Amino acid sequence: MSTAQMSTHEIGTALVDLCRQGKNHEAMTSLYSADIVSVEAAAPPGQERETVGLEATMAKGQWWSDHHIVHEAHVGGPFPNDDQFIVTFTYDVTFKPSGQRFTMDEAALFTVTAGKITREEFFYTMDG
Amino acid sequence: MSTAQMSTHEIGTALVDLCRQGKNHEAMTSLYSADIVSVEAAAPPGQERETVGLEATMAKGQWWSDHHIVHEAHVGGPFPNDDQFIVTFTYDVTFKPSGQRFTMDEAALFTVTAGKITREEFFYTMDG
Repeated sequence: MSTAQMSTHEIGTALVDLCRQGKNHEAMTSLYSADIVSVEAAAPPGQERETVGLEATMAKGQWWSDHHIVHEAHVGGPFPNDDQFIVTFTYDVTFKPSGQRFTMDEAALFTVTAGKITREEFFYTMDG
Repeated sequence: MSTAQMSTHEIGTALVDLCRQGKNHEAMTSLYSADIVSVEAAAPPGQERETVGLEATMAKGQWWSDHHIVHEAHVGGPFPNDDQFIVTFTYDVTFKPSGQRFTMDEAALFTVTAGKITREEFFYTMDG
């Protein structure tokens, strides 16, 4: 799928559609720039808040998929403004290593440059 | 209320609390910088996308309040990341001049500088 001509809104819609199907991996390979910068609100233990590059960002996503059971997911948006869009995510998940089930409620801000997502920033609190 | 010492997360929580009570005017006077920049996803007819300064931004809010009946409002968040936070708004409203009732579904990105909100950006589509 060529995304060179897609608008920010179209890229947001494509991302949301793929995420609703659980195809997060495919969303990254088709819509993300090789130079994607991925920013967490909080650094995971022993890691940085910022991840640079598609390979490292996909590895982060793969780690998350491998360690969580997703019982239910809700994806809201996209909400565009100029070259950015916001998507909301609510996940009912179990963290496999601990067996703890919890709800992740977050928003993500995406920046588009030349038809590719070049930056994703995740907004959330750590207090549940 | 002094906000000089409030964190980004605390300011977001204060904003959400006031908006949930319908006290948008009070949210602006207590939490916004005099130099606030307010950015719409789309320019209203005959206006700019960007509004500069507290007085002009409050006038924009007052125009909106004067022209809409709010039947129901849902405010989600705040979702913080560093010096910014995202809030989601869903409004069931009637536009008084036309009598048209519709749902506004949007996200807003707020930037905090030195304990005051210095930038608000509204993300939405115009297609419903």
